[in-house]
Amino acid sequence: MSISPDPKALSQGVLAGERRALARAITLIESTRPDHREAAEALMHELLPHTGRSVRIGITGVPGAGKSTFIESFGLHVLEMGKKPAVLAVDPSSPRSGGSILGDKTRMEDLSRDARAFIRPSPSGCTLGGVARRTREAMLVCEAAGFDVIVVETVGVGQSETAVADMVDMFLLVLVPGGGDELQGIKKGIVELADAIIVNKADGDLAAAAARAARDYKNALHLLAPASPHWTVPVLTCSALARSGIDEVWSTIATYRDTMDKAGALADRRAAQAHAWMWNEVSETLLQALRDDPRVERMLPDMERGVAGGRMAPGAAARALVRTFRGQG
Amino acid sequence: MSISPDPKALSQGVLAGERRALARAITLIESTRPDHREAAEALMHELLPHTGRSVRIGITGVPGAGKSTFIESFGLHVLEMGKKPAVLAVDPSSPRSGGSILGDKTRMEDLSRDARAFIRPSPSGCTLGGVARRTREAMLVCEAAGFDVIVVETVGVGQSETAVADMVDMFLLVLVPGGGDELQGIKKGIVELADAIIVNKADGDLAAAAARAARDYKNALHLLAPASPHWTVPVLTCSALARSGIDEVWSTIATYRDTMDKAGALADRRAAQAHAWMWNEVSETLLQALRDDPRVERMLPDMERGVAGGRMAPGAAARALVRTFRGQG
Repeated sequence: MSISPDPKALSQGVLAGERRALARAITLIESTRPDHREAAEALMHELLPHTGRSVRIGITGVPGAGKSTFIESFGLHVLEMGKKPAVLAVDPSSPRSGGSILGDKTRMEDLSRDARAFIRPSPSGCTLGGVARRTREAMLVCEAAGFDVIVVETVGVGQSETAVADMVDMFLLVLVPGGGDELQGIKKGIVELADAIIVNKADGDLAAAAARAARDYKNALHLLAPASPHWTVPVLTCSALARSGIDEVWSTIATYRDTMDKAGALADRRAAQAHAWMWNEVSETLLQALRDDPRVERMLPDMERGVAGGRMAPGAAARALVRTFRGQG
Repeated sequence: MSISPDPKALSQGVLAGERRALARAITLIESTRPDHREAAEALMHELLPHTGRSVRIGITGVPGAGKSTFIESFGLHVLEMGKKPAVLAVDPSSPRSGGSILGDKTRMEDLSRDARAFIRPSPSGCTLGGVARRTREAMLVCEAAGFDVIVVETVGVGQSETAVADMVDMFLLVLVPGGGDELQGIKKGIVELADAIIVNKADGDLAAAAARAARDYKNALHLLAPASPHWTVPVLTCSALARSGIDEVWSTIATYRDTMDKAGALADRRAAQAHAWMWNEVSETLLQALRDDPRVERMLPDMERGVAGGRMAPGAAARALVRTFRGQG
C-alpha cells in the first residue's frame, strides 16, 4: 500500500474533491501502523475545520429488508436533488465475511457507477470500536471532500447499531411487511434507537400489508416509545425497487434536521457525540494497551476463566490486572 | 466509622448471619479509602465460595408506580414462603437527593421491622459505575449471609436500569394503568430490558384499566420485542396495596428461573455478567487513574471544550490524553 507521507498534500487533494486523494485518505485512516496513525492524526487536524456540513444518516434493518436497494434508490434521489451522497459501512465482521451489503457492490450498480457518489465498504478490523472509530473519521473526510449526505449503513451485528446511532444525526430502521413478526431479526433496543421507521417493499402484492404494518408500528410506538420533546418517530412506507416513497423519506429527513436544528438539539447531539467519542477512544486505547501488555497477557486467561466460573471476584481480578499493567503488581 | 481491620473475622460474622457483621461488611465495601478497598477485596475473596445461591431480582418502574409498596408486599410474601429477602438500591444520585424510595424507610415499615429481612439504601457515590460496583458486591455479601432472594431496586436515573439488569437474573418493570401513556416516564430501551412487566394498582376503580393496560402491553410486546429463544415476556397485574397478585409474580419468577436454568441460560447469563463486570471495572479503574493524573487534569478542560466545539478531533484529543497519562506526552 502506497500512502502519501504528506498529510498536508493529501488534505489539499481531499478538499479539492479529488477522488484518489479521498480513497487514499480513508486508507490511511484505516491503517493501524503507528506512523500511519500519526499521519492520519495530522490529516484529521487539517480537515477538521472543513467538516460538519453534511446530513449524517444511519441505516439499519432486518436481513432481507432490501437495505442495499433502499440505499441505492435513496442515493440516486439525493443525486437528483443536486446533492452528493457518500455511503459508508460499519460491519465489525469485515466485508470478507460477506455480511456487509457493500461487499456486494453489484447490488448498488447504478449508484456506484455515478462519479458524484462515493461508496466505501467497512474497514476490515476485528473490534467494533476500531471499525466505528475509522468510520467516524471517514465520515469527516467525506464531509471535507464536499459530500452533502453521508449514509452510514450497519448490518445489525450486536452493538454496531448503537455505534452508528452515536455517530449520525438521524437513525433509520428499514423493515418489511410481514404480519407482526417483522422484528424477529432485530436485536433488543434497536427500535428505540430509530428516529424514523421505513417499511420497504410497499409495492405490488405487499402494498396493503406494508400499510398495515406501518399502522401497527405507529400504534406500538405510541405505546412503547417515550415521546421526544422535539420529535415524534414517524413510520413511512416506500418501495426502493419501484423508487416510490423515497421523496417522502428525504423530506422527513429535511423536516427532522430543521426541527432539531431550531430546537438546538442537533448541535447538542453532535457535541455530546464528539465528547462521548473522545472518552470511548480514551477507554479503547487504554484497554488495548492493557491487553497488549505481556504480563497482563500471561495472567489474563486464568483470570477470565476464574471470573466466569465464579471462583474469582470480578472486582479483585480487575484490580489485579490494572495493578500489573501499571507496574504496581 | 469503626471498621474491623480483619476481613477474616468479618467474613465469619457474615457467614454466621450476624446482622452487625453484614452491615459492617457492606460499609467496608462502600468505602473508597485505599486500605479499606484492600480489606474489602480480601473479604470478597473469603465470601466468594459462599455466593451465587440466591434469586437475583432487579426492579424498576415509573415514578408513582408504587415500587416501594410492591417491594414491601413482595418481600413479605418471600418471608411467608420461608425465604429471607434482602433489598438493595442503585441510585447514582444518592439517597440524600430523595430519589431513592429506600431513603424513605417508613414506606417499607412492615418489611424493615422484620428481623429476617435486610434493607440497605443506595451507597452515596457520585458515579453510576461506583454505585453499581458496590451494589454488585453487596449482593454477593448478602448471598454469603444466607439471603435467598436479593431485590435490587433502581429509581430509573439514566443508565442505572442497564447496570441493574446486568447484575440480576431477572429484571422486572413495574407500571401503572394510565390509558396508553403509562410509559412516558420510562427511559428509552428500558421496556426491552424487562423479563416481566407488572401492572400495579390493579384494585378498586383501576382494576379494569389495569387489565386493559396489561392486554395492550402484551400486544405491543408481541410486535416490538423479539422473542427470546427461552422466554416470552409475560405481563402480570397485581395490587401491592391489597397484596393480591403477588403470589403470581413469585411463581412467574420461579418459572423463569426454572426455564432459564434448564436451558443453561442462567449460568451463561451469570458468567457473561461476571466477565463484563471485570472488564467494566478494568475500564473504570483505568479511566479514574487517567482523570486523577495531575497532568491530564490540567489539559482536560481545554480538550473537552475543543472537542465539543468541533475545533479538535476527538481521536487526536483521546490519544493526547492517553500519551500524557502514560508518560509519553
